[in-house]
Amino acid sequence: MLVNHLFGACLPTFGNCADRYCLSGYGGGGKDMNEMLDLAKTVKGLDGLELVGNWHVNDSNIREVARMFDDRGLKISMLVPDLWTQAKWGKGSIAAPDAKTRRAGIDEIKKVMDWAAALDCKHIDVWPGQDGYDYCFQADYIEAWKWLTDSMDECSKHNDKVRILVEYKPREPRTHCFVDHVGTVLLLLKDLDKVGVLLDIGHSIQGSENVANAAALLSSYGKLDYMHLNDNHGDWDEDMMVGSVHIIAYLELVYWLKRINYQGWLTLDIFPYREDGVAAATQCKEWMEAMYRCVDRVGMDNFAQVIRNADACEATALVRKALNL
Amino acid sequence: MLVNHLFGACLPTFGNCADRYCLSGYGGGGKDMNEMLDLAKTVKGLDGLELVGNWHVNDSNIREVARMFDDRGLKISMLVPDLWTQAKWGKGSIAAPDAKTRRAGIDEIKKVMDWAAALDCKHIDVWPGQDGYDYCFQADYIEAWKWLTDSMDECSKHNDKVRILVEYKPREPRTHCFVDHVGTVLLLLKDLDKVGVLLDIGHSIQGSENVANAAALLSSYGKLDYMHLNDNHGDWDEDMMVGSVHIIAYLELVYWLKRINYQGWLTLDIFPYREDGVAAATQCKEWMEAMYRCVDRVGMDNFAQVIRNADACEATALVRKALNL
Amino acid sequence: MLVNHLFGACLPTFGNCADRYCLSGYGGGGKDMNEMLDLAKTVKGLDGLELVGNWHVNDSNIREVARMFDDRGLKISMLVPDLWTQAKWGKGSIAAPDAKTRRAGIDEIKKVMDWAAALDCKHIDVWPGQDGYDYCFQADYIEAWKWLTDSMDECSKHNDKVRILVEYKPREPRTHCFVDHVGTVLLLLKDLDKVGVLLDIGHSIQGSENVANAAALLSSYGKLDYMHLNDNHGDWDEDMMVGSVHIIAYLELVYWLKRINYQGWLTLDIFPYREDGVAAATQCKEWMEAMYRCVDRVGMDNFAQVIRNADACEATALVRKALNL
Amino acid sequence: MLVNHLFGACLPTFGNCADRYCLSGYGGGGKDMNEMLDLAKTVKGLDGLELVGNWHVNDSNIREVARMFDDRGLKISMLVPDLWTQAKWGKGSIAAPDAKTRRAGIDEIKKVMDWAAALDCKHIDVWPGQDGYDYCFQADYIEAWKWLTDSMDECSKHNDKVRILVEYKPREPRTHCFVDHVGTVLLLLKDLDKVGVLLDIGHSIQGSENVANAAALLSSYGKLDYMHLNDNHGDWDEDMMVGSVHIIAYLELVYWLKRINYQGWLTLDIFPYREDGVAAATQCKEWMEAMYRCVDRVGMDNFAQVIRNADACEATALVRKALNL
Repeated sequence: MLVNHLFGACLPTFGNCADRYCLSGYGGGGKDMNEMLDLAKTVKGLDGLELVGNWHVNDSNIREVARMFDDRGLKISMLVPDLWTQAKWGKGSIAAPDAKTRRAGIDEIKKVMDWAAALDCKHIDVWPGQDGYDYCFQADYIEAWKWLTDSMDECSKHNDKVRILVEYKPREPRTHCFVDHVGTVLLLLKDLDKVGVLLDIGHSIQGSENVANAAALLSSYGKLDYMHLNDNHGDWDEDMMVGSVHIIAYLELVYWLKRINYQGWLTLDIFPYREDGVAAATQCKEWMEAMYRCVDRVGMDNFAQVIRNADACEATALVRKALNL
Repeated sequence: MLVNHLFGACLPTFGNCADRYCLSGYGGGGKDMNEMLDLAKTVKGLDGLELVGNWHVNDSNIREVARMFDDRGLKISMLVPDLWTQAKWGKGSIAAPDAKTRRAGIDEIKKVMDWAAALDCKHIDVWPGQDGYDYCFQADYIEAWKWLTDSMDECSKHNDKVRILVEYKPREPRTHCFVDHVGTVLLLLKDLDKVGVLLDIGHSIQGSENVANAAALLSSYGKLDYMHLNDNHGDWDEDMMVGSVHIIAYLELVYWLKRINYQGWLTLDIFPYREDGVAAATQCKEWMEAMYRCVDRVGMDNFAQVIRNADACEATALVRKALNL
Repeated sequence: MLVNHLFGACLPTFGNCADRYCLSGYGGGGKDMNEMLDLAKTVKGLDGLELVGNWHVNDSNIREVARMFDDRGLKISMLVPDLWTQAKWGKGSIAAPDAKTRRAGIDEIKKVMDWAAALDCKHIDVWPGQDGYDYCFQADYIEAWKWLTDSMDECSKHNDKVRILVEYKPREPRTHCFVDHVGTVLLLLKDLDKVGVLLDIGHSIQGSENVANAAALLSSYGKLDYMHLNDNHGDWDEDMMVGSVHIIAYLELVYWLKRINYQGWLTLDIFPYREDGVAAATQCKEWMEAMYRCVDRVGMDNFAQVIRNADACEATALVRKALNL
Repeated sequence: MLVNHLFGACLPTFGNCADRYCLSGYGGGGKDMNEMLDLAKTVKGLDGLELVGNWHVNDSNIREVARMFDDRGLKISMLVPDLWTQAKWGKGSIAAPDAKTRRAGIDEIKKVMDWAAALDCKHIDVWPGQDGYDYCFQADYIEAWKWLTDSMDECSKHNDKVRILVEYKPREPRTHCFVDHVGTVLLLLKDLDKVGVLLDIGHSIQGSENVANAAALLSSYGKLDYMHLNDNHGDWDEDMMVGSVHIIAYLELVYWLKRINYQGWLTLDIFPYREDGVAAATQCKEWMEAMYRCVDRVGMDNFAQVIRNADACEATALVRKALNL
């Protein structure tokens, strides 16, 4: 149903989600990788999973992990260098004020690129979530932007078999992240042909963006490479299921994905704190398929015509028709 | 279709909406009351309209306006005392720091109650939008709360034929309004049996409330008397059409309206700045009817069962079924 | 300096703060209670600490913990029943849909009341943070409100030596918490004389309240019993240091605390993820003392006069004078 | 005191501010240009004013207006083409879906550039506030971005004596504006050397940016040309006085303006709805001077050292010292 798209999930969907209050997790802990993969495999139509350095993979287990995937017919859709799960990254990674930390961040990225190449995984996801600041007078914005630029430049030259994607987010874990907006990430990467963007829908919503607009803008610059699916109420990265709140924004996004001929992964990045992970992933898939059916029900031309007219009344009538209401 | 409900609109829907930049309005100005009513009459299923003091009605034209309604078979669903369209209310009305202004606000309310009684209009809408503050050290919160309480108490005793409803809103036109939240309005009115609440959905969303929760809480206290319909993106009272953003929240609201047997008006309070007013009102009506059909498609018992289970996966599956997706 | 006030902190200030990404904490883990208390003791002017059930105290160690405090001349300013750090509370505590869970929540509160009485601690803090919902159709709002009311009613009768305080918060860990606003908590508790309110400044800011207004309103109902100090940028409960963002709101708050003769604790509830806890607590204390000096610099009468005039230009000029600028 | 800076204001500061409810304005209407300029002249240290096409200037009065300025020793700090005060721009100006409207927008800009050149005014402010959308499926994001780019490209070549500045804003009057963020405006203009940026502090705050970060990033690209001063509570462009809320953010901004050697105008863009305009402008000036004194009190080197250390506790201690607390 999801023509052109592979459907994936981040591995913790099938683990035990914790927040800062309930650090031992809401889900009952203790699942190992094999158990999580077995659960993932029960989600109908799931093609692959993302793995995060330090949490899931490390120098010594990466080959073994690959075999676990192969055995189950699952792909590794993405490797994510760990730049945010350890105290050593607390004040930043590739744009940290400390030069040794920046070097460690760059080295971590390069190492994961090489892992990815060896595993035939085409992308790695650089999320500089710790690169930012919490308080005023805590960052040198001009230096930090140079460090970001230089780090990305160096990493982009490291291994031609793997494309680096940068994931932007307005805030959390820092109160202000440097790469905070679709405009900012494109400014950073505009002249770096080898680096693309991972668009996390919830991060876009958290930043008051309209995600279809963000996707279209990224595609204008040839940089819409990968999507993270989730939803939230608009204020925070709540990592809720697809279909929770922003149905119409999703519908418009799907129209644009079809229009720009996006062929990348659609990968869940949800935190089903109080939900069963398999059920939550399944619901997200159902919602995405419903959204594709809705776009097909109306047809690309009808959407294009309404967009051309820029008339909100026609637009909302078409939305209702698409939703079969 | 909207069983148990009369469907209304605020009169400016059919006028010319202005904002602070385009003060002459986006719609081409100059429609008089008769023209606006003629337009309103073309909205299929519209039962009545709200009128605002000073803007639409005054001491000398109220009877004539009533006749305009009668001639067209339209009801006056609500009279709204003008406590917010003139410079004299700029620093407050019934909770203004100036005693004469408070007296003028109370007198305005009483006068409009008497108009309403004479016209057989059951409710007036007291929106203390100017009662609040913009800056720190600009209001005496303890005094203001007493003034609000005393003013409402006095007004509530004025005319038994008319029920006063208070409309809450977190902000705008002040950066902070005193009656800012469903909890606050209930606190204010808990012991005033004769005064109810007007729930404006957009105000609730602007305040990060879940509107179904607000409606249910109001009904627990016997104070859900009237609804204003509109939508926004969550940050501001954008007065957009029903069906713009928060479809699922609306679906849940309609479920609760049925469950608590709400029988009041469903009245549009939209600002179709760049839209045709008749088309916009018609689209809102279509959306509301669709929402009622969605609830009926699933049935009250199925929703009740899912709510009892408190399982988000079941809930989102039911939403998809209700939406016919 | 902080006349009339005891100054406290939550114990984790001196531990190792974690978020959902860096679950092992940014601070280097492994401090035991004695070490944390030793650190706390080095904060000049610190009078006491809050303890949370399950995290810090339990049935078997509560007496021993009390001795640790006595030995250092520290008070236990507050005991907090654990209604939010374990998976068993994931779908709610005293307003959970499951009756056994509600019973367990009530029992937990009563148990902690008895601990408090035995330790001569006057207050316990009931924060129903897990009582809420994340998705639409996941909660029965009318039932939940009854459960909340009934639970508080029952608990309020349990032990006259201890006053229960309820702490409100708009969201997190749920996307919507039931007791979400100053108006809501007052509505809940208006007729329960024996229960008061804990006002967490950051929660109030997160909910777009002006905290001085919230404090004044609580005092009108005799329910401003205890304060949690912290700050954030307005969107989320970032638990930053006092003095980070909202200096003027703090200044106005301090004016109102003096005016209503607040005599309770001023207790830090900060999460110094990347900061030294002792340094962070010390900075907060310095800021609070500065704020009191600022109010004294101008004098209560001058503030009162400016407030009476409701003139923003006078107000901002007075703020500048108070701040010594 | 404001070394290197000319201090200005937008003309409506001295007029009569209206919002969408009180369209006739809170201030008592009817002041003509001469009266507004006379009022402006009473603000100590005011060097000039901005004028907006259609509102204040037009083809027939521009020379006369210039003389009014000359007579009073005031400068025209900026001319602003009217792309947002008339219904004809309701669906966009230079990125409108209608080609004739785009042409009209471009022509308006060019005309105002020529006015500016004739009047020796160095900048014009292009604020594409109506270029955006309100609803999903109402804009072709890819086309719109091309139209924006092409329009700016064409305008940039029109008159070498005048530098075009683009002002960004996340929302209002549209619910989504295309040029919504500091990253977006830099992406748009990165390769257009002749076009710079007007940074409106309130717009930056409304978009959850830290304004010092925005200013520093703009200066990295040689595009921090002009500043609009105002403040708000974080959710909306409330156009409040300087010093209302974000004092520390302003302090950090002033540090960065000195560090990057900003020499442009500091111009108020406030809406003193309920305040006396002269008093409000005077208060803003006092606040800005106080902020410069605060930075000087500590000295650039001490700030630089603290920033290098990236330690929030040191940073907040230095802020307190700067503020003389």
